[in-house]
Amino acid sequence: METLEIRRPDDFHVHLRDGDMLIVAQHTAKDFARALVMPNLTPPVLDWLEAANYRDRITLNTRGTGFQPLMTIKLVPRTTPAIIRAAKAHGVTAAKAYPVGVTTNSDDGISDFSAMSDVFAAMQEVDMVLCLHGESPGIFSLDRESHFVSTTLRKLHNTFPRLRIVLEHVTTSTAIHALYELGDNVAASLTVHHLLLTLDDVIGDKIKPHNFCKPVAKYPHDVRALKNAVMRGDPRVFLGTDSAPHSKENKECAAGCAGIFTAPVAMPILAELFESWGCLNKLEPFTSEFGAKFYGLPLNMGTLKLVKQPWTVPSIINGVVPFHAGKTLSWQVANNE
Amino acid sequence: METLEIRRPDDFHVHLRDGDMLIVAQHTAKDFARALVMPNLTPPVLDWLEAANYRDRITLNTRGTGFQPLMTIKLVPRTTPAIIRAAKAHGVTAAKAYPVGVTTNSDDGISDFSAMSDVFAAMQEVDMVLCLHGESPGIFSLDRESHFVSTTLRKLHNTFPRLRIVLEHVTTSTAIHALYELGDNVAASLTVHHLLLTLDDVIGDKIKPHNFCKPVAKYPHDVRALKNAVMRGDPRVFLGTDSAPHSKENKECAAGCAGIFTAPVAMPILAELFESWGCLNKLEPFTSEFGAKFYGLPLNMGTLKLVKQPWTVPSIINGVVPFHAGKTLSWQVANNE
Repeated sequence: METLEIRRPDDFHVHLRDGDMLIVAQHTAKDFARALVMPNLTPPVLDWLEAANYRDRITLNTRGTGFQPLMTIKLVPRTTPAIIRAAKAHGVTAAKAYPVGVTTNSDDGISDFSAMSDVFAAMQEVDMVLCLHGESPGIFSLDRESHFVSTTLRKLHNTFPRLRIVLEHVTTSTAIHALYELGDNVAASLTVHHLLLTLDDVIGDKIKPHNFCKPVAKYPHDVRALKNAVMRGDPRVFLGTDSAPHSKENKECAAGCAGIFTAPVAMPILAELFESWGCLNKLEPFTSEFGAKFYGLPLNMGTLKLVKQPWTVPSIINGVVPFHAGKTLSWQVANNE
Repeated sequence: METLEIRRPDDFHVHLRDGDMLIVAQHTAKDFARALVMPNLTPPVLDWLEAANYRDRITLNTRGTGFQPLMTIKLVPRTTPAIIRAAKAHGVTAAKAYPVGVTTNSDDGISDFSAMSDVFAAMQEVDMVLCLHGESPGIFSLDRESHFVSTTLRKLHNTFPRLRIVLEHVTTSTAIHALYELGDNVAASLTVHHLLLTLDDVIGDKIKPHNFCKPVAKYPHDVRALKNAVMRGDPRVFLGTDSAPHSKENKECAAGCAGIFTAPVAMPILAELFESWGCLNKLEPFTSEFGAKFYGLPLNMGTLKLVKQPWTVPSIINGVVPFHAGKTLSWQVANNE
């Protein structure tokens, strides 16, 4: 049987939720050594103490796996430089900025990035990574990321050139092209689903809420640009799944939530995809090296073993319909001993 | 109380379904004197006899209202000129062509329009209107209509210049601009929802299956082009609601059906919309004159009275979530005596 053994991967963008739904953390912990955990809970994670408490709840739900959650705090208009410095001192990995209203739990997000200059200056000073949900509010959906890249991202980088920035879950060729202009301190995380989906998979045939996320999947030429960045082995493009579970009921309804639950299928799908592109050798750097290097973290020590053996994705996992539910995948993660 | 009395309108594109769901015909019959009934049932309406039987079932469901269904047959690869001539002789109003696979029940549609030349020639000869679902299969969703207009529609009109063609449920500025180039024998029907929605109303915030239809709503500039055509009083742009009920269960699921149920709210929403545009005087020609004239039908004799009195659209009607469910509209149709 064909097998593939790679350095244990990191997921540099994941939603583990809280309360009962935190059970989903086990799926991330099963395949990933570390994951950068997003802070847009209700209530949100706003400072180091809330991050530490949240980390403890995650650790409790993933005990025995060796999984290490990397914590983030959410930037809101009332965030201060002191909050940033304390977060850095207490081991918080990054701070996440959501423009107001662009996705789940972002109503308390940022409407004026220039009003937060002292916070970004402090982040640059203490060398804390800024994670950006890169969509401009009030813009037509398909143009939100391109607009954000051309305006807010560009301005932020020009003002704080030493601030390390990750443009999260990129979906457009515009974003990929901007990376090259903006230099080494700007990187991009890339999801599994945006390597596969276009808008046609959301509304091209039937309407499919389980393929719906923010930013929404775009044009075929955008997917090609994302794929090319990965196939080139661009070190500033790395995996952040944005795995974002919502209950089946909250997806299959009159106003379904944005988010795709990929944690249980991310690595098998990536293996299948990279194999189909003839570049399985590019998988390990994408999932297990580039992100850690950008974040200045040591590479993981263990390995993840994948075997080429078909399996069918369950129709529901922990009350959530996973990505590719019911489909048969050609690779699976071997049981970890 | 403000009132508005207009010539009784026609709906030149409606799905009345069959079996139990045919009960929805009552909502069309309540406000419209006539409606052009689409033939994409399962099994489809393929000839004059099936159209006559379907008409009888509709009439049974709308008795006492004076409603007159205008019948269509579906063009499929096995349609013959003889079927067209017989349909014309038996009072069938139009024939509808669906490119294969572009919408609900179109798997038996047309993959090669040039192979149907004898049928279109017969339609031109007997002067039967051709209704087109104007989307090219296999094209990215947002470009399907523009592609169809630039290829199939243009070629059909050039080959059969005297054939009267209605491009159904237009959604793009491309389609509107094509109308002017293609001359008097090409017209367009326009829905209520495409005058209101952009893609943002489908996937811009949450994912909203009750705003999902084929063709999918497009860009803001497209909606402006549709609105401008209506405000200009273009006689080749007239109402065809494409009211297309699907049960709540078939919309709010993992793969929701395309179609918006507007029959119970079409006239009130149009009154509100035209009033907001300052052109209530353009409502009557759009709903009650232009379509009839293009089809060569007499104008209706009766009137429809609307009153400016708020009402709230029910959350569900006959098992279907109507367009604008739960919203309060400013106009309503007065009870007909």
